[in-house]
Amino acid sequence: MERPIFMNKAMLTTVLALLVLASASGAQAASWGYQGDIGPASWHGLSPEYERCGNGRNQSPVDLQGMVDAALEPVAFDYAGRAHSLVNNGHTVKAKVASGGSLSVDDRNYELKQFHFHAPSENRIRGKSFPMEAHFVHADADGNLAVVAVLFREGEENDALDDLWEEIPEGEGESRELAGSSAVMPADLLPSQQTYYRYNGSLTTPPCSEGVLWLVMEEPVTVSADQVEAFRDAMDGHANNRPVQPLNARAILK
Amino acid sequence: MERPIFMNKAMLTTVLALLVLASASGAQAASWGYQGDIGPASWHGLSPEYERCGNGRNQSPVDLQGMVDAALEPVAFDYAGRAHSLVNNGHTVKAKVASGGSLSVDDRNYELKQFHFHAPSENRIRGKSFPMEAHFVHADADGNLAVVAVLFREGEENDALDDLWEEIPEGEGESRELAGSSAVMPADLLPSQQTYYRYNGSLTTPPCSEGVLWLVMEEPVTVSADQVEAFRDAMDGHANNRPVQPLNARAILK
Repeated sequence: MERPIFMNKAMLTTVLALLVLASASGAQAASWGYQGDIGPASWHGLSPEYERCGNGRNQSPVDLQGMVDAALEPVAFDYAGRAHSLVNNGHTVKAKVASGGSLSVDDRNYELKQFHFHAPSENRIRGKSFPMEAHFVHADADGNLAVVAVLFREGEENDALDDLWEEIPEGEGESRELAGSSAVMPADLLPSQQTYYRYNGSLTTPPCSEGVLWLVMEEPVTVSADQVEAFRDAMDGHANNRPVQPLNARAILK
Repeated sequence: MERPIFMNKAMLTTVLALLVLASASGAQAASWGYQGDIGPASWHGLSPEYERCGNGRNQSPVDLQGMVDAALEPVAFDYAGRAHSLVNNGHTVKAKVASGGSLSVDDRNYELKQFHFHAPSENRIRGKSFPMEAHFVHADADGNLAVVAVLFREGEENDALDDLWEEIPEGEGESRELAGSSAVMPADLLPSQQTYYRYNGSLTTPPCSEGVLWLVMEEPVTVSADQVEAFRDAMDGHANNRPVQPLNARAILK
């Protein structure tokens, strides 16, 4: 007979609890980031909830290329409200909007929930990266998400961003209530031309959920080098862009 | 002190092996079907490997509607080989092809691997179901899949299908080698017009893997009621179509 291994009830309970925890470790969101062991290449392994980051076949961002000419209907933007707060969550700086308006596409109405920033850009256009990108996140009544992406090219100072950055929360975990001119209207961050690229993708951050409608505005808006630097400072100097993901079977409509 | 629980090494090994088995229980394919407890609504729960059948956001089949007019390039079909065997696996009747040819789309070359049948059709066109549908399954060098779907409308007897059905394996698990006229050329089952709808979907059977390029031929071909019945008899009288899945953020290109 082999040497017996002694376990008392408390030890067994601990072992079982650890096993349960291990199998349910996705229940609470795992920490993730843009660097080192918790960077984009590791997201899928940080939690079972994040597995789509690794095995999804319809992920964002992408390098938009090989566009198919399509009769895309104009997006009906109806942006009315203003941003009411700005939060630095360590992953981005996010502006919250209350009844901030909506957009309609495919006969579906999506309500604007928040917008936030990435530097450098996450999506690329025919291989080209941009210094910054804003994502306007919308949800329809069934929880389907649509994201409008606005690319920033380096140039003149962006007036709307200038107003917003007056209150930029500089450290992780900080937030600011917005009032007066800093409570910008999201519409002021959109380009004047409303032509766009359309594709089917995902959240660009864990859990990388798919089924997200992406509308990438074709015309970039400008941003000054100082404005990009102010954002990167708020990100503690690090980039907050996920690398581009394979297109696989997807077409980009133009 | 609590009462100790004795485990020898063999017991511990058994417990650990069972835990490993439990966590890897998806390793062997679970039985699935089209009816009852193992029908389409239950697929995602039959094995962890099948979870995409339940939580995928880009699943097939779909009801093709709201098509976006797009400048789709013609598909370059290069179908040369013949079917060499026909197998009834209980889920479908599948024809295997060796060096059966290829197609090119998006500058990618996909090799034809097999084709098989569903009755009634899996995909629908603007709500319309068809009595039968053939799927021509292709893979590129990286394992990316492309499926060409041909819809059958009830009408005249289909000559190519008539040749193939001479050797239809009538019972689950049966197979037949094909020779002479029954070794049909896959090209003879395609419609004469090569216009198609394009969308991004999945396998229509477990594990419902996504990232599959779907090319649904616009023009149906004919099938006689007797030919459909011969197929349904081989399926033991049951339908073998998965219900249509939500489009979510996808556009159908036309």
